[in-house]
Amino acid sequence: MKAKVSRKAHFNAAHRLFKSDWSNEKNAEIFGKCSNPNFHGHNYELIVSVTGEIDEETGFVMDMKVLKSLIREKIEDSFDHKNLNLEIPEFKILNPTAENIAMVIWNKLRPHIEKSKELEVILYETPRNYVTYLG
Amino acid sequence: MKAKVSRKAHFNAAHRLFKSDWSNEKNAEIFGKCSNPNFHGHNYELIVSVTGEIDEETGFVMDMKVLKSLIREKIEDSFDHKNLNLEIPEFKILNPTAENIAMVIWNKLRPHIEKSKELEVILYETPRNYVTYLG
Amino acid sequence: MKAKVSRKAHFNAAHRLFKSDWSNEKNAEIFGKCSNPNFHGHNYELIVSVTGEIDEETGFVMDMKVLKSLIREKIEDSFDHKNLNLEIPEFKILNPTAENIAMVIWNKLRPHIEKSKELEVILYETPRNYVTYLG
Amino acid sequence: MKAKVSRKAHFNAAHRLFKSDWSNEKNAEIFGKCSNPNFHGHNYELIVSVTGEIDEETGFVMDMKVLKSLIREKIEDSFDHKNLNLEIPEFKILNPTAENIAMVIWNKLRPHIEKSKELEVILYETPRNYVTYLG
Amino acid sequence: MKAKVSRKAHFNAAHRLFKSDWSNEKNAEIFGKCSNPNFHGHNYELIVSVTGEIDEETGFVMDMKVLKSLIREKIEDSFDHKNLNLEIPEFKILNPTAENIAMVIWNKLRPHIEKSKELEVILYETPRNYVTYLG
Amino acid sequence: MKAKVSRKAHFNAAHRLFKSDWSNEKNAEIFGKCSNPNFHGHNYELIVSVTGEIDEETGFVMDMKVLKSLIREKIEDSFDHKNLNLEIPEFKILNPTAENIAMVIWNKLRPHIEKSKELEVILYETPRNYVTYLG
Repeated sequence: MKAKVSRKAHFNAAHRLFKSDWSNEKNAEIFGKCSNPNFHGHNYELIVSVTGEIDEETGFVMDMKVLKSLIREKIEDSFDHKNLNLEIPEFKILNPTAENIAMVIWNKLRPHIEKSKELEVILYETPRNYVTYLG
Repeated sequence: MKAKVSRKAHFNAAHRLFKSDWSNEKNAEIFGKCSNPNFHGHNYELIVSVTGEIDEETGFVMDMKVLKSLIREKIEDSFDHKNLNLEIPEFKILNPTAENIAMVIWNKLRPHIEKSKELEVILYETPRNYVTYLG
Repeated sequence: MKAKVSRKAHFNAAHRLFKSDWSNEKNAEIFGKCSNPNFHGHNYELIVSVTGEIDEETGFVMDMKVLKSLIREKIEDSFDHKNLNLEIPEFKILNPTAENIAMVIWNKLRPHIEKSKELEVILYETPRNYVTYLG
Repeated sequence: MKAKVSRKAHFNAAHRLFKSDWSNEKNAEIFGKCSNPNFHGHNYELIVSVTGEIDEETGFVMDMKVLKSLIREKIEDSFDHKNLNLEIPEFKILNPTAENIAMVIWNKLRPHIEKSKELEVILYETPRNYVTYLG
Repeated sequence: MKAKVSRKAHFNAAHRLFKSDWSNEKNAEIFGKCSNPNFHGHNYELIVSVTGEIDEETGFVMDMKVLKSLIREKIEDSFDHKNLNLEIPEFKILNPTAENIAMVIWNKLRPHIEKSKELEVILYETPRNYVTYLG
Repeated sequence: MKAKVSRKAHFNAAHRLFKSDWSNEKNAEIFGKCSNPNFHGHNYELIVSVTGEIDEETGFVMDMKVLKSLIREKIEDSFDHKNLNLEIPEFKILNPTAENIAMVIWNKLRPHIEKSKELEVILYETPRNYVTYLG
């Protein structure tokens, strides 16, 4: 009996789309106002889902309290109220597009989720734009 | 030409996480405040989806009016404003976690959906926690 | 320069509409399924608003971090995952309608908000029903 | 490294469910009030998703600015504030059910999305009814 | 002890902005695509609020079950799945702007709300446009 | 016949809470992580409301197309994808709290709204924090 459990979380951060091995001109041309050197920012809304067997003892795929704490500890505590480009090591090189942020979050959570279970990350950059990443 | 049609519904109910073959202490230890013997409750929001061929005559996968009535008759009428542990027979034994409630809802609806079609149940326990069950 | 600052919070609870000085029959007749003796429950969503002068030093009407902590400490910590009728002293006598819950929340918060400021409480019992209370 | 990027859009339109090769009586019998000859209407909310490899250069599956413009040009500009039955050629014959509208939108967008990428269309007819179409 | 109770409802309808004593050209010039002679439509979301004393007996400003039925009977049953211009007598003359629809709804509900209580109608024409009417 | 018309808009921006005449230490002490010198950011959601007489000719308090353009031209075009502290002249001195941003938006729009009409600005800094400003 498989099910997928999903938990919402959120963090606020500044970022700019910027590829460090491109000139400023090329960054501006490709990324437009998203590459503003002074940064802009978002309320990122995050949905983390774990798919696996429903444990017959507990009735849980995964204890939501544990999932909530894990997201807080591994993601919210380090991303919230930060500048992603300047303060999150992964984005010193990697361009912090929604796709890449979702991938980084997935990579940070994956080691803490049981191997037999699937992990999915949905990241809303705005209420109108979002990304789904499954590894 | 396949499509998935989805219909939202809702019911309000009390529940507690409680495994009848565990001691009260073990229930409290594992389920924390969700196991409060006096119960707590939720506005459960339900999304029922049916996937199948679009009928060439009607342009429907399934008539949404029929799906809406089915959810009302099989789920809302029996779950709404109830205590899940005390009043829904399935949860006298089964722990009413969101996972198990989604599974019970799926089982109640499945016989009424054409065999050739897939059924999916999404159950929001809160706006921040939800479960997806596909059988 | 006056403004109103608003902060959302939430708690899950069980309740029943029940007037202790009425017979069970009268409770059932007037409150219908909301008076189910086994309780039902809700995800209560709460919006607390404070209106006052914008402080010229800080640019705040009230520090949102302080307001958030106040709601957590005075309301969420005591109401969340509780049975309102059985565990919140105010509702041993008072019928826990959305109107009365909003009033009780307002009364609990009022002493902790500066006297010169107005306090408003909005309480969503469901996404479709809510109450506004201004004292 | 695959991901799915999703973009929300919207248009308002009138329609009626109507099968041109059925009598008015049969249309009324099968489609009920949705077949009102004077039309009714909806705020259609649209989510278009594209799944593919994350480009290592840009960090994009697809540039959201391009996807946004494509939806505007191919869908919103022709569907918004229109009568689907009378003004969108596809629905002169095809019954404009949510399923069929989603399919028509998918067909209009598909030629403009890279072949190696998957396209998904979700169409909300109301906040409570929606359809998912994947081709 | 005063409070405001609010109840959400909804109906889907077609309309066009059209002033019957203006030429078609003037209608098109002033109302643009909202005046499309073939109509367009909306999912109207309605919030009806009643402000008054909290009854000490019941703990209600107004029984929400009664308010819900009243909205269904007086508004939803006559407006839902209709063409406002052609099928609602008030809009044969009156231009069905969101402002005027809110006013008509208010006028239809007012006689059924106790005189001592205030009535407020909020009408969402789209999730981005809405009107508040207080009489 | 008075009504209030409301229009939603949005912009994404970076900011930090920072009072230029305070030391960095005092800024950090009072504003906590909101004062991060590297900035953070938000998806600001904006609701602009205008209250006045419903024009008997048009049925409008104010043409929503005009209000939408006004918000785009005066607010979205200058605030979107910007760093509020560095790029919006008003916030070189004024601390960009939600309260102050709402006030600045109100001041920018007020001259363009008819004098006889009231203007209200609601600014969501996050889905959980917002400010209402009426002048």
